[in-house]
Amino acid sequence: MGTTHLFTDADVEANPEVKAVFEDIRATRGSDFVNNIWRALAADPKGLKRTWENVKSLMATPGALDPKTREMIYIAVSIANGCSYCVHSHTAAAKAKGMSEDEHGELMQIVALAASTNHLVTALQVPIDPEFDVK
Amino acid sequence: MGTTHLFTDADVEANPEVKAVFEDIRATRGSDFVNNIWRALAADPKGLKRTWENVKSLMATPGALDPKTREMIYIAVSIANGCSYCVHSHTAAAKAKGMSEDEHGELMQIVALAASTNHLVTALQVPIDPEFDVK
Amino acid sequence: MGTTHLFTDADVEANPEVKAVFEDIRATRGSDFVNNIWRALAADPKGLKRTWENVKSLMATPGALDPKTREMIYIAVSIANGCSYCVHSHTAAAKAKGMSEDEHGELMQIVALAASTNHLVTALQVPIDPEFDVK
Amino acid sequence: MGTTHLFTDADVEANPEVKAVFEDIRATRGSDFVNNIWRALAADPKGLKRTWENVKSLMATPGALDPKTREMIYIAVSIANGCSYCVHSHTAAAKAKGMSEDEHGELMQIVALAASTNHLVTALQVPIDPEFDVK
Amino acid sequence: MGTTHLFTDADVEANPEVKAVFEDIRATRGSDFVNNIWRALAADPKGLKRTWENVKSLMATPGALDPKTREMIYIAVSIANGCSYCVHSHTAAAKAKGMSEDEHGELMQIVALAASTNHLVTALQVPIDPEFDVK
Amino acid sequence: MGTTHLFTDADVEANPEVKAVFEDIRATRGSDFVNNIWRALAADPKGLKRTWENVKSLMATPGALDPKTREMIYIAVSIANGCSYCVHSHTAAAKAKGMSEDEHGELMQIVALAASTNHLVTALQVPIDPEFDVK
Repeated sequence: MGTTHLFTDADVEANPEVKAVFEDIRATRGSDFVNNIWRALAADPKGLKRTWENVKSLMATPGALDPKTREMIYIAVSIANGCSYCVHSHTAAAKAKGMSEDEHGELMQIVALAASTNHLVTALQVPIDPEFDVK
Repeated sequence: MGTTHLFTDADVEANPEVKAVFEDIRATRGSDFVNNIWRALAADPKGLKRTWENVKSLMATPGALDPKTREMIYIAVSIANGCSYCVHSHTAAAKAKGMSEDEHGELMQIVALAASTNHLVTALQVPIDPEFDVK
Repeated sequence: MGTTHLFTDADVEANPEVKAVFEDIRATRGSDFVNNIWRALAADPKGLKRTWENVKSLMATPGALDPKTREMIYIAVSIANGCSYCVHSHTAAAKAKGMSEDEHGELMQIVALAASTNHLVTALQVPIDPEFDVK
Repeated sequence: MGTTHLFTDADVEANPEVKAVFEDIRATRGSDFVNNIWRALAADPKGLKRTWENVKSLMATPGALDPKTREMIYIAVSIANGCSYCVHSHTAAAKAKGMSEDEHGELMQIVALAASTNHLVTALQVPIDPEFDVK
Repeated sequence: MGTTHLFTDADVEANPEVKAVFEDIRATRGSDFVNNIWRALAADPKGLKRTWENVKSLMATPGALDPKTREMIYIAVSIANGCSYCVHSHTAAAKAKGMSEDEHGELMQIVALAASTNHLVTALQVPIDPEFDVK
Repeated sequence: MGTTHLFTDADVEANPEVKAVFEDIRATRGSDFVNNIWRALAADPKGLKRTWENVKSLMATPGALDPKTREMIYIAVSIANGCSYCVHSHTAAAKAKGMSEDEHGELMQIVALAASTNHLVTALQVPIDPEFDVK
């Protein structure tokens, strides 16, 4: 019973394109565990590859933001877009990368505050202050 | 011409409840500039006060997250909720609190990446991995 | 300059299907003013007719809810869906049907509060209490 | 098994800050039943307190709008934001405050109608009529 | 256990208005199976009738777009609005009308791509090119 | 006056990474016109490159779906996500790829219909029919 076919490890073995991506996920993360989003995407190997490459280059490559901050931004977007699975998987990732209970609590409150002012501004049609414009 | 009445400084002077909030905004921020969201909310002094107190206690009070990170989370939520004004005002705030051009670029890309995977997960109805559940 | 062609009264005169809908809008509302949404929809006469009939049967026909309450619900949905035009036109309608400044202020605050708790609940993945289930 | 830890009554007893909020919820509502959103928020006592105070001051304090109308507005926003739990808990609250089956049916239809016109307006980029602007 | 009462065939038999709509659904689709959305809407016979007539006239009547394309558009909107049930039921319909696995894979990727650029555009507040305006 | 800096052709000339992407956009599309989204993204050359490569590989490469259908799906998602700019630019693209006025009208109506049923389903918490599950 399920709503999308999730590739088992045997299914992965049987498809070389999928297998190559799964091996890269495991090597990049240093863990044998591959979560369900990748098992669902595997039905479309090109889509799987494109999605993983985007995720890898942004979330698993050093850059201007530290890994924990990136995960918290990811969680914030996922909440606003109403994606439970994404909230779960990236909350797990953020904790693994050092997010404390207090930081998680503040993240929740900032997301809730932003949502309330987002709705107020939309409701009131507030014009952008000239001070905020790029010269 | 305008879609919402924006309180001028003269309007603010004439209403003691509004004036008290505006004075607190100016004192808390150490700046005379009060942006349009507060001038639009001023038509409902109780709503103005509640909103400001929530913003002040979360965005202008020391806590677990540093001020720049809080603003970036605020921006991320505002993008996902489609609030242009909020994106503008909090981008200005994040820059004032030290967000670099590179950090801004990465923020944009993470938000865009999260949006794309949020939609994929909703499309594929990915079940939550038992590994992500709280024990 | 404009992003969608808006039917002028002359365009309306020239198209019998569109003219019939515009006459019904004017008669139902008891006013000669027809706002831009109808002038934009007129490019697709069947879509115009379907949309007007749905709006008319729900918003301009007596039912269980009073007209002012209906308009406030319409505003609330339009804010959450980020539709500025809809917020504007239905705020005008709600005021015409008796919404006071205080009621408008409370409406804004309830929408903002609901948005903040909506995001918290999504973030925390709160399971539905068995007490809320239909037997 | 669960995705968020829900505070049991024993957990609540053990934390004085949480206990104080729970006692106020029970006293304000005149009922011993405390639903899951509060049990999930309890992990962050400050967030719990802020959220409850906002909810209490808007939903459980006399104002311009009657309690049933407030709950229907809350439901409308929660549907548009895609929050199932919120739809459930506030539908239960609206029924407790007198919402009839016919009123519920009309609420559903107005929300659905607003959503469809919201999307049409966004699609057609309808410019705001000068008649709707605040002078 | 359930969150909305779903009309059984016996409930449908007992209500002539509901029965008439269900008979039309079965006749139009040439199938005895009636899915849950109609069983949930049946509690409000007028809402059921309005919704079915809108669906029937757009999805089950020949027009400019072929049936498969219509269903793929429906799926795309349902993903962006976060409606799981709708994604499921219209994916089943699209497959019944000829959507291949490859077409489904591309649909997923286009939806994900559009979501990512939608967020970027909102983030960057890109002004509309004059070239895109209607003359 | 503007809210985001838009790269002029002179700015593009001055940055080799940006210039390379702009040349590929022009070559792929067979047109000298480069619209504003790319001029806004150019401030982050890596983000510009990633976004263009995703768009190019999905929208400008032969696949299972024809180019017109892809653009209509893109429009549908952009409406649901409330992105005006995206609706405009992809409506122009869809027309260039053969979308007729009638097809555009039907697209609008299907998007509006899907939005209304999406909201109804969320409101009613319709459980997924076992018939729709993948075996």
